[in-house]
Amino acid sequence: MKTIGGGVCAAKGFTASGIHCGIRKNKTKKDLALIYSEVQASAAAVYTQNLVKGAPLTVTKKHLTNGKAQAVICNSGNANTCNANGIEIAEKMSALVSEKMGIPAEDVIVASTGVIGQPLDITPIADGMDALVAGLGDHSDDAAEGIMTTDTVKKEIAITFEIGGKTCTLGGIAKGSGMIHPNMATMLVFLTTDANISPEMLAKALSSDIKNTFNMVSVDGDTSTNDMVAIMANGMAGNAEITCEGADFDAFMTALNTVTVYLCRMIAGDGEGATKLLECTVSGACSEAVAKTVAKSVICSSLVKAAMFGSDANWGRVLCAIGYSGADVDVNKVDVSFVSAVGEILVCKDGTGVEFSEEIAKQILLEKEIGIDIRLNSGDAKAVAWGCDLTYDYVKINGDYRT
Amino acid sequence: MKTIGGGVCAAKGFTASGIHCGIRKNKTKKDLALIYSEVQASAAAVYTQNLVKGAPLTVTKKHLTNGKAQAVICNSGNANTCNANGIEIAEKMSALVSEKMGIPAEDVIVASTGVIGQPLDITPIADGMDALVAGLGDHSDDAAEGIMTTDTVKKEIAITFEIGGKTCTLGGIAKGSGMIHPNMATMLVFLTTDANISPEMLAKALSSDIKNTFNMVSVDGDTSTNDMVAIMANGMAGNAEITCEGADFDAFMTALNTVTVYLCRMIAGDGEGATKLLECTVSGACSEAVAKTVAKSVICSSLVKAAMFGSDANWGRVLCAIGYSGADVDVNKVDVSFVSAVGEILVCKDGTGVEFSEEIAKQILLEKEIGIDIRLNSGDAKAVAWGCDLTYDYVKINGDYRT
Repeated sequence: MKTIGGGVCAAKGFTASGIHCGIRKNKTKKDLALIYSEVQASAAAVYTQNLVKGAPLTVTKKHLTNGKAQAVICNSGNANTCNANGIEIAEKMSALVSEKMGIPAEDVIVASTGVIGQPLDITPIADGMDALVAGLGDHSDDAAEGIMTTDTVKKEIAITFEIGGKTCTLGGIAKGSGMIHPNMATMLVFLTTDANISPEMLAKALSSDIKNTFNMVSVDGDTSTNDMVAIMANGMAGNAEITCEGADFDAFMTALNTVTVYLCRMIAGDGEGATKLLECTVSGACSEAVAKTVAKSVICSSLVKAAMFGSDANWGRVLCAIGYSGADVDVNKVDVSFVSAVGEILVCKDGTGVEFSEEIAKQILLEKEIGIDIRLNSGDAKAVAWGCDLTYDYVKINGDYRT
Repeated sequence: MKTIGGGVCAAKGFTASGIHCGIRKNKTKKDLALIYSEVQASAAAVYTQNLVKGAPLTVTKKHLTNGKAQAVICNSGNANTCNANGIEIAEKMSALVSEKMGIPAEDVIVASTGVIGQPLDITPIADGMDALVAGLGDHSDDAAEGIMTTDTVKKEIAITFEIGGKTCTLGGIAKGSGMIHPNMATMLVFLTTDANISPEMLAKALSSDIKNTFNMVSVDGDTSTNDMVAIMANGMAGNAEITCEGADFDAFMTALNTVTVYLCRMIAGDGEGATKLLECTVSGACSEAVAKTVAKSVICSSLVKAAMFGSDANWGRVLCAIGYSGADVDVNKVDVSFVSAVGEILVCKDGTGVEFSEEIAKQILLEKEIGIDIRLNSGDAKAVAWGCDLTYDYVKINGDYRT
């Protein structure tokens, strides 16, 4: 497996484009993205579990009932959610792509991200379509920029891998930042691959993968209304179609997981206002469910997050978050260490504090990527969750987001 | 019913005291409090649901098995939690009160609040006992100060009410601020009354009341390890002992609720870093459980809290928090208004935004007490939850709490 450039355009047959069409007032910020496959592709998606769902999700879900798609259109700056004409606008967006590209509207995945509850005007999108289509090329970075909201960095990756002797490529772009929480298809992620895989197996791969990846990321505990992870697989790598479990499917799953874990870490590390990526690893749990519940509880604790911002080895808050997680844990068996590039330090053994050097702990916690390593010593199950610290800037960004 | 001064010393037979004994380095901050009843009182308490429980809770629970108590000792600056010798220290604290006051150690309620996982030295407490006892008098404010951590204001109240023609008094002090979340006996609250009520009915009154009061308060979503609400009723008002439900019990419940709601509002409004008290009222729910779940979800949303800090009428975040609450809600029937002393404004009707004046909304949201009024239009059940805004100062306070 090898990491390469190109993002969503790395796989054979995929092009992308991103422009400023005018949904946002700031003309330097792209607000519309298009991803296109030369040929119809197998497609699958997972969606937010929020009962309040963005209109684009409803339209996309309908379009993907046959497991096929050929393009993704996504705008930022407006979520097209809680609007009376939301469905109508989302359908217009796919109709515009259908018209310009000569593909069925049902083969278009539609997504929107931004402010909730403000009607989305179709005019700038319609006016921008010619430029958007003309821009199609090896421009994953433009598309990645077009879907960003409060993200500070573009999030893209691509890798190559082998299936049955054929070289396949899988790439993706993501937008994250705020309103991000487990138990849903978090944030917006678009993945493209030239691997040949049936719609059924693609859906199976995606829904299985996200349980341990995007559903284990939390920035702020708020489950968004518009989150979606969508994947298109156009088969142009020429491998024998994956139609069942086996070595080929496993190879695909491994590649998919490599890309999604990378994007999870990017999304968490670029959480709104974040200065640090937090990775909480829980091992020795009596079940995977317990490990996941504990890892998510710790990563979501405002007090743990604020302590990490201050590089403060306040492990009592970690114990506290384990204790209120709802998981059945013997707190008297819990060990906790903090880990980073400069070292590892044990701060709690058997649920009780141990003596440790505050100075060394501070050095470890001053790093940009912090591991919170929790050993429950009650079994063999394990889980990882990703999050970020809680900072002044999170408050600043969200104190007046709309203006 | 009448509000009076005196806090926990307002009821007949109660005195209190608060001193700086040296647990904290800052000598201007009191760190030890004592509340004492002339006679043995009926007593009841509710405790945090966190699996990690402070040692004082274990000791207090044991002491209250007979439903009787005569004193409360509480220190701030150290939670006496996750320490190997925690139980031993908590028992020493009650033994010190027992010795000085000539009452059984089993009649002492013990509580601690502060940093988790640092051994609590008994020496300053033992050395301070003479001064603490000598200070006993009409000093509810000293006791209220002694239990404060990051609280910025003392929290106390007392009221008088009638039971069977006798005037009774009920007062309380509280400490709140951080690590405060529903589904437990939140924070530290000590209540005293001279009403005559059996231990069983006192326990029933308290456990019933907190479901709609302290369990509906959230500052930061972190359920503390040390939270406790304890009440002593010494019977000195001379009313006929309340031993069953009826008019007298109802009068007592009403008085108790008046005091606890007052303290809930004080705790939420003085949440760490808070500039505003948020009161979320959910009505028209199909069940009380749904109303509570929705109200708590909204009050706990970091994004709603940050928007309120910025006086931003970002109602989409309210809808979003309703949608991910887990409650079965028809989001297409939901109405939302923001309310404060200067007026009320409808921002969402039937799950969709309505046109409203941003200017008027801003005026309403610039107030210190904000109501978020949610009507589910699906039934008759109702609930109220209290919280606060998320501010720079919350991050500041918690980014480096221990140093």
